[in-house]
Amino acid sequence: MAIKFAARMENIKGSAIRELLKLTEDPSIISFAGGLPAPEVFPVKELEEVILRVLREEGRAALQYSTTEGYLPLREKIAQRMKKVNVECQPNDILITSGSQQGLEFSGRVFINEGDVIICESPSYLGALNAFKAYQPKFVEISMDDDGMIMEDLEKALEQNPNTKFIYTIPDFQNPSGRTMSLERRKKLIELANQYNIPVVEDNPYGELRFEGEMLPAIKSFDTKGLVIHLGTFSKTFCPGLRIGWVVASPEILTKYILSKQGVDLQSSTIAQREVNKFLEMYDLDKHIDMIIGIYRKRRDLMLETMEKEFPAGVTFTRPQGGLFTWVTFPEHMDAAEIMKKSLEEKVAFVPGQSFFPNGQYKNHGRFNYSNMPEDKIVEGIKRLGKVLKAMI
Amino acid sequence: MAIKFAARMENIKGSAIRELLKLTEDPSIISFAGGLPAPEVFPVKELEEVILRVLREEGRAALQYSTTEGYLPLREKIAQRMKKVNVECQPNDILITSGSQQGLEFSGRVFINEGDVIICESPSYLGALNAFKAYQPKFVEISMDDDGMIMEDLEKALEQNPNTKFIYTIPDFQNPSGRTMSLERRKKLIELANQYNIPVVEDNPYGELRFEGEMLPAIKSFDTKGLVIHLGTFSKTFCPGLRIGWVVASPEILTKYILSKQGVDLQSSTIAQREVNKFLEMYDLDKHIDMIIGIYRKRRDLMLETMEKEFPAGVTFTRPQGGLFTWVTFPEHMDAAEIMKKSLEEKVAFVPGQSFFPNGQYKNHGRFNYSNMPEDKIVEGIKRLGKVLKAMI
Repeated sequence: MAIKFAARMENIKGSAIRELLKLTEDPSIISFAGGLPAPEVFPVKELEEVILRVLREEGRAALQYSTTEGYLPLREKIAQRMKKVNVECQPNDILITSGSQQGLEFSGRVFINEGDVIICESPSYLGALNAFKAYQPKFVEISMDDDGMIMEDLEKALEQNPNTKFIYTIPDFQNPSGRTMSLERRKKLIELANQYNIPVVEDNPYGELRFEGEMLPAIKSFDTKGLVIHLGTFSKTFCPGLRIGWVVASPEILTKYILSKQGVDLQSSTIAQREVNKFLEMYDLDKHIDMIIGIYRKRRDLMLETMEKEFPAGVTFTRPQGGLFTWVTFPEHMDAAEIMKKSLEEKVAFVPGQSFFPNGQYKNHGRFNYSNMPEDKIVEGIKRLGKVLKAMI
Repeated sequence: MAIKFAARMENIKGSAIRELLKLTEDPSIISFAGGLPAPEVFPVKELEEVILRVLREEGRAALQYSTTEGYLPLREKIAQRMKKVNVECQPNDILITSGSQQGLEFSGRVFINEGDVIICESPSYLGALNAFKAYQPKFVEISMDDDGMIMEDLEKALEQNPNTKFIYTIPDFQNPSGRTMSLERRKKLIELANQYNIPVVEDNPYGELRFEGEMLPAIKSFDTKGLVIHLGTFSKTFCPGLRIGWVVASPEILTKYILSKQGVDLQSSTIAQREVNKFLEMYDLDKHIDMIIGIYRKRRDLMLETMEKEFPAGVTFTRPQGGLFTWVTFPEHMDAAEIMKKSLEEKVAFVPGQSFFPNGQYKNHGRFNYSNMPEDKIVEGIKRLGKVLKAMI
């Protein structure tokens, strides 16, 4: 007699990426598959200082239970930092989460009934799609161009799907495509959200990692009706191992996220929150981010230049102005999973793009990460893949 | 036009305890309301040493993303420690969670469809009930005596509710009642679980904090069919601020918990896991636990002695052999919420017991925590409450 699980578990599959990451733990593999920051940029030395001060000055409080909403001084500092993307908010508009992945999960939990529609970019972030899938929605995908979601298509989708619960978007250096939504489209998106009274989940893990051009205002900054839920994180600008992210939302919505947090894990790590807070007090995070940007820009340049040289005609890729990824499009008749197989024989890994389409319809794409590999491996890996592609085309 | 939330959010209310905790942040209040460990017992000094070693020896790995299952050396040590409660398991049978609260949440997520039955003790842990409620089950409560759940009632409940998804129990020093399930009943419970093929969620946050008598084997130790999901945590034996707990389960079940973890927050804090692991390497956790036990035993003794002296006839309370709580029963005609109001006027707080009954049927109980208040405040608080009670009876 089998154990009876909940129906929702039938939709939950392992993340193709996380499975792939296990494969690529082999250090002889050149991996463009993960979405990891470069460990060289972690402020290990500074953290020694930070952690000692937290333990010596506030050790007992840092090791105790604390409030679900999160450590107030940290929320104050995040409210300040939100001004970088033109968002005016108060500490009370902020909930600290265990990475922004938890903000995505709460978005599913708070909004989705089985069969509801979620509108998202095509392609979109696999981890978000998996988090939402637990609540059994339907996904309506909106095509993108180099300026992000195509607004005419979004309007049509809103018109045709009155049971839409929210629009999910990663406006800056999108995962997986590397594309950025233009200012004009951000404004149009809010106009449509207001018109249809549909919440927007704005996922912004990479926005601060801009290599060139001006930082664009967050969609949240145009939000006049309290419809935008903005998700932020320190995982890419500081380090992911502490698992500290945040949600900014209007009181009506944030209350539901706080209640969710209370039920699922009570609170995020007290000491990790105080460590981030103390780091922000003692050091200049923006200077630290500038250093990261310098390294990632070089890696992006190198990856794109090498792709330009080594990939055969008919293979194209995006030119991200920041973030961690570029998105490669192979000729339509090719299957990226097949390419990946051959590529692994040459000890080079990337993520075949099919799983980034919630309805699984396109097979000729791949996501390439440039943040986590040193420069010589980027060149060598893309060269090897170029040979594989030339042999296959 | 209002924002449309998911139906499940209608069942989610704030934890009465967490709301109460805000009230009791006023330092002039003597609070028996929380479930907090004593901050005096946190190994702050030792953690300085531990954290420095983690940062110096493995800093970059400790700040990076890592696997969903959790840090292998820590899982190895937990597998060793499970022998204390007679459980033989392997690191691969273990998932690291963000506190055992997350193990409770996953139990709801993995098993419960709307309308399914969850069988639990009456009363039971509020945080678990709230975690399960998000999945809209029905609760069937089983009466307890000083040996835990009454097995005849459990058998009847299993017979009458074929759509039972799991039995939830806290066998050691139960929250809120302080009661411990006898050895004989543990064996009977497994017999029934096997007979009806029903999983058991065994929540064991307090088991290692036994003040007297022999530690009892976990229900998991009698599990022959892989039906028991055992939840453990370092929150009460080490410190809660790191948010490190664990799940032990059979592969079929654990896989579902791991997939859940992947979707909701990817992984628990890398550095926190490595810190706990390093502490276990460098120090003797059992010696540390002995120190905690000495302090809590004294506090329990003092609370019970003072209740004996100061509470009027007709008020009874349990005699926990360990853990953090005693459970007070007032005369049937009294409402603990009313007592709490008067008690707060005298600056003494406890948790009225109604919210520990998922169906809310009993009002004449209260949960009293003795771990978090120093000895003089325990005596003073119980004396004041005694006066309040004498005036009300």
